[in-house]
Amino acid sequence: LEQENDHELLISIEKYHPAKLGRLLESLPNKYRDDFWSLIPVNCKGEVLLSVHRELRQFLIKKTSEADLLKCLSTLQMDELADIDADLPLPVVSAMVEAMDSQRKERYRTVASFPDNTAGGMMDVDATAVRKDVSLKAVYRYLCKLRKKEGMLPEQLDQLVVVDRNNKVQGTLYLSDLVSMDNSLSVGDVMKNDVPLIDSLQSASQVAQIFEDHDLISAPVVDENNFLLGRITVDDVIDVLKHNSEQRLLASAGLNEELDMFAPVSHISLNRAIWLGTNLITAFVAAWVIGFFEASIEQLVALAVLMPVVASMGGVTGSQTLTVVTRGIARDLVSSANIVSLTLHELKVSFINGILWAAVVFLITILWYDDWQLGGVFALALFVVSLTGTLSGALIPIVLKKLGVDPAIAGGVILTTITDAVGFLIFLGTATYILI
Amino acid sequence: LEQENDHELLISIEKYHPAKLGRLLESLPNKYRDDFWSLIPVNCKGEVLLSVHRELRQFLIKKTSEADLLKCLSTLQMDELADIDADLPLPVVSAMVEAMDSQRKERYRTVASFPDNTAGGMMDVDATAVRKDVSLKAVYRYLCKLRKKEGMLPEQLDQLVVVDRNNKVQGTLYLSDLVSMDNSLSVGDVMKNDVPLIDSLQSASQVAQIFEDHDLISAPVVDENNFLLGRITVDDVIDVLKHNSEQRLLASAGLNEELDMFAPVSHISLNRAIWLGTNLITAFVAAWVIGFFEASIEQLVALAVLMPVVASMGGVTGSQTLTVVTRGIARDLVSSANIVSLTLHELKVSFINGILWAAVVFLITILWYDDWQLGGVFALALFVVSLTGTLSGALIPIVLKKLGVDPAIAGGVILTTITDAVGFLIFLGTATYILI
Repeated sequence: LEQENDHELLISIEKYHPAKLGRLLESLPNKYRDDFWSLIPVNCKGEVLLSVHRELRQFLIKKTSEADLLKCLSTLQMDELADIDADLPLPVVSAMVEAMDSQRKERYRTVASFPDNTAGGMMDVDATAVRKDVSLKAVYRYLCKLRKKEGMLPEQLDQLVVVDRNNKVQGTLYLSDLVSMDNSLSVGDVMKNDVPLIDSLQSASQVAQIFEDHDLISAPVVDENNFLLGRITVDDVIDVLKHNSEQRLLASAGLNEELDMFAPVSHISLNRAIWLGTNLITAFVAAWVIGFFEASIEQLVALAVLMPVVASMGGVTGSQTLTVVTRGIARDLVSSANIVSLTLHELKVSFINGILWAAVVFLITILWYDDWQLGGVFALALFVVSLTGTLSGALIPIVLKKLGVDPAIAGGVILTTITDAVGFLIFLGTATYILI
Repeated sequence: LEQENDHELLISIEKYHPAKLGRLLESLPNKYRDDFWSLIPVNCKGEVLLSVHRELRQFLIKKTSEADLLKCLSTLQMDELADIDADLPLPVVSAMVEAMDSQRKERYRTVASFPDNTAGGMMDVDATAVRKDVSLKAVYRYLCKLRKKEGMLPEQLDQLVVVDRNNKVQGTLYLSDLVSMDNSLSVGDVMKNDVPLIDSLQSASQVAQIFEDHDLISAPVVDENNFLLGRITVDDVIDVLKHNSEQRLLASAGLNEELDMFAPVSHISLNRAIWLGTNLITAFVAAWVIGFFEASIEQLVALAVLMPVVASMGGVTGSQTLTVVTRGIARDLVSSANIVSLTLHELKVSFINGILWAAVVFLITILWYDDWQLGGVFALALFVVSLTGTLSGALIPIVLKKLGVDPAIAGGVILTTITDAVGFLIFLGTATYILI
């Protein structure tokens, strides 16, 4: 972040890991990025491009000549290329594909044909496969040859895939078995069947769950007939987990996860305006509800003072249930089988807290306004809105999920709209009926 | 979740992975958990205990006899035992330690001496180490012997640690190099130095960042003199990432991440009451501000109708900035070096959106109340509260971080308190001054 001392910077850049350089670029305001990018060595640039957010990536790609881009990209793996090819200029993609040999060309097209958020889009097509009937000794020879040919073995190689002559997966051979068993044994004697095969159409989140449950480092990806297509490694899974976690966090504030902190003001403003506009509509729904009770407020102005408290407590109670249920759905803990039990459980909790805080506000109102009737109405409204909030918090994510909408994005807004409207309606309505 | 058909259930339990069984237990209401737990085979129970939340774990441990517990725990690794030993009855822990041989006893004490959320607490003490001067052939022999002795090699073994005679780490030997190089070479010829050594006192989140940046599967853990203490594997890192992501999500609703969905109602109620009480206080701060303007509201009741809109828009604008900055801090993208640039950038964004939505509410007010002066005051307040929200959203997490408080927990509440109070104050204050 020291933009001054170029010489020192240049020396320290050499030492940094591409992911760290990516984070430094993200943390820099726009005007410094250009210079910083030009200081990064070409052999790092490919991985830096991969590590930054889409918007920044597009900015950096624009600042780089096509010839340089081709050089940067040459260090990337096939699945990594397929992840960012949508951001590259078409001539670069064509030139990149042209430069591949026919086998790699075909592999690249396989990966590029799957959406990014499926197992097919995540996989690396360079799965190393062996046959069941060969000896471990032959496997060693094969690996030595492969290394000489490619210069290195694939990264994160913990197991080889065992296939038959039709490329159908039969099991896997762990390197840790390979190195600790008698090498006159055959692959078939030593191979394991405990690694689940990943279907190429499974979603990235499902893949992450499988990796997590089975503590996998890599797993073979297959088509519907169990033919080997490629492999997924745990580093891709970590990327998915980080991505999902960021997305959930940012979605709850209506933010786009690919948005760059220092993106152009006009761009960020437009992006946020949508969320603010949505919020303005829901706020006016609440205002419209209040509008019906102008006459009551005119007569008893304390209603205007206390009404935001009712709405706020309803919103907070509801958001706690909403968070529990939304997280439960995401972790596959909540389904139609237990949603009724869970909702009842949550209602019991908010019944207790509703009574507690209703009693508290009753006392506060008596102390403040010396009016036990107003206190009673306030307490009743707070109790009812707590239960409403909880019920909404439990049902909204279930309904949204049925509709195919991500509860993390829309859940909070819908909940607040309901608790605000119901809160004002119950409080002002009851007050009008009883007090005025 | 089918609680009826015990026979079918029993058959399907056998097929499930422990992590899946853990999730099933979490999704079951309390009354069914007992029966379900008793159906799980003993050799799975240890890993199930490990996978569930602390509160549920304590419940299950209470339901299990000490003799059975010892059987369950025998399948766990050393670092896994150290993670849950705080929840076990003391006699079980003593019996467990007693049953270990002296080497394992010492290793267990090493792991248990580090806090859970440090590298030392995460590590497995069974790091497999070799010397630099032996040949690859000797490494094979050693691994075969180790396998015969222990029954298996450590899980997720992608590399062996190379140490000198004092147990000081000199590098690592990848299995993929071992299997693809001439086995007359020595370990020193083939070993790599690209794996970062993890300091035993580093925080779990720092370790996760290192693994993520370098795409590691495992890494050696060392003390301050680079002596080998153990190794951390990527499955532990995935657990940390999941844990952090859950915690952030739940903290924003004031929820405890170890809380079980079906924990006793009294327990959950108490846990949530703290958050609701905090919110009640902040809501009354807002009410108190409104209270100063009772006379104005009595004269112009439209103020009561429109004031929640001002507060709400301020809160949403602020929460967007708060989320950007909090995430930036968590990802190490925001520091004192760029917080001023970032705050100015955010203020520009909210300047534009403030003008836009001020204009919109100005028009709506004219249409609704036919009062351009009221519209002007409303628009001005909305504009000012937008900027206030943004400024607070940028500075609150920075200040909280300096104070050592997690911005994810307290940030939202503080922000809302400020935007509500300022929103009501500006709107009602300006209105009183200009309109009344």
